[in-house]
Amino acid sequence: MPAFRHRLRVRYVECDAQGVVFNAHYLAYFDIGITELWREALGSYQDMLDAGVDVVVAEAGIRFRDGLRFDDEFDLVMTISRLGETSMTTDFRVERAGGELCAEGELRHVFVKAGMTEKIPIPDDIRAGLEPYTAAASD
Amino acid sequence: MPAFRHRLRVRYVECDAQGVVFNAHYLAYFDIGITELWREALGSYQDMLDAGVDVVVAEAGIRFRDGLRFDDEFDLVMTISRLGETSMTTDFRVERAGGELCAEGELRHVFVKAGMTEKIPIPDDIRAGLEPYTAAASD
Amino acid sequence: MPAFRHRLRVRYVECDAQGVVFNAHYLAYFDIGITELWREALGSYQDMLDAGVDVVVAEAGIRFRDGLRFDDEFDLVMTISRLGETSMTTDFRVERAGGELCAEGELRHVFVKAGMTEKIPIPDDIRAGLEPYTAAASD
Amino acid sequence: MPAFRHRLRVRYVECDAQGVVFNAHYLAYFDIGITELWREALGSYQDMLDAGVDVVVAEAGIRFRDGLRFDDEFDLVMTISRLGETSMTTDFRVERAGGELCAEGELRHVFVKAGMTEKIPIPDDIRAGLEPYTAAASD
Repeated sequence: MPAFRHRLRVRYVECDAQGVVFNAHYLAYFDIGITELWREALGSYQDMLDAGVDVVVAEAGIRFRDGLRFDDEFDLVMTISRLGETSMTTDFRVERAGGELCAEGELRHVFVKAGMTEKIPIPDDIRAGLEPYTAAASD
Repeated sequence: MPAFRHRLRVRYVECDAQGVVFNAHYLAYFDIGITELWREALGSYQDMLDAGVDVVVAEAGIRFRDGLRFDDEFDLVMTISRLGETSMTTDFRVERAGGELCAEGELRHVFVKAGMTEKIPIPDDIRAGLEPYTAAASD
Repeated sequence: MPAFRHRLRVRYVECDAQGVVFNAHYLAYFDIGITELWREALGSYQDMLDAGVDVVVAEAGIRFRDGLRFDDEFDLVMTISRLGETSMTTDFRVERAGGELCAEGELRHVFVKAGMTEKIPIPDDIRAGLEPYTAAASD
Repeated sequence: MPAFRHRLRVRYVECDAQGVVFNAHYLAYFDIGITELWREALGSYQDMLDAGVDVVVAEAGIRFRDGLRFDDEFDLVMTISRLGETSMTTDFRVERAGGELCAEGELRHVFVKAGMTEKIPIPDDIRAGLEPYTAAASD
């Protein structure tokens, strides 16, 4: 299966006085990507909450290559690089329409009981839904 | 009593490609002002929630005069212009340090039961706490 | 011509601890709507800048009806209610997919020389491009 | 010299539906911290721009420990861990007032000619201004 992609367009409010997307907004983009990957893999995030499962971000990293600019269209290209016992790591590439790499990064999410901070093992149905998006599956 | 003032400084993330604060962030500033007025008048917003009272914004307006720029210090200058049965209206002036008017606006808040959308009359203790901040009190 | 519509989906980052979209983000939505209306009417905002014309927001107003929630799809429904000598006023309705009214508001933009604050008359080609989006044209 | 500290308070707009600060905003906090460190070390960021020098963020990382909540006061605690030829790396700790660690991270900034993307060596006066904030200086 090819990597999951989600297309977005840069909003004016996301650009700073240097004329490029302010660095923090890339993490907000990653979050949108996760929401859309889950929608395709598992149904909506709300379904997961309704089943008593939530996730929290434990770790984030980004390397910036070439700043996105106002009105640029770009793709979030995502692969789950690790599905652990209680956490998952997702790798992101931010590609300007046309294919130019603008940034790379990763988010590690930890699964918790909804409304709590206690870690839980990834439930089997969620694990099964996510497996097609892992690096192993895309080999 | 003079109008309530709260000093802030413009953050880089709040400035857009025109080099000035993006218009939406003024509403976020107004919200910070309300939080600080309540802290002085009533204790914290959390105290109000704990007492079962919450507020929602029903209406907002802004007129922009002169754009705030990165690193500008400015004051939110606030007066409650109307304390109604179930709602309050607060007038805001955004003054750059030195006194120049950058924007003016108002927010109307409606009081509700915490966690609900049902309007409630402003509780007496809250009304008493807010009265010193009304236009009438400052005459 | 029917009113211009642009479909968006609420992002998690836009929701606050009350579980609804924070009020300031509606102004950011309005700005996205304007960008898309201009794209259809005039080509991109960048084209306008390249022609030496820019706009600044002079005034904004919103009435909140029913809070948008995370993952809601909604339409910005837009009509230019006034095309003046140097400014335009655009009316917005925020409708949850299905048609429920969530908020209403308006933005007044003033035309300026790009990079300057000096008002200019709306150039004829821009006026002609915008006229089909006015309330008069939709009658 | 002890590490540089800058005190902030969590804004309502920064909190998400989980009731904690949304992850992306920590990067915006880091940026505020850098602005304040530069103000103390070098005069304002604008002074640096006026001297023809700018910085861009090349890399960012964060580990989240315990979510900041609305109205929490917290300190950004900062040390420059590396002053290289053309870039600097700053380590951040986010400590809730009282000392609890909420997040840790780092930003790598690259020095460029203002308005350009070309790397330049860190100018001598800037290097001298920053050296007291390095890990070496604090040993």
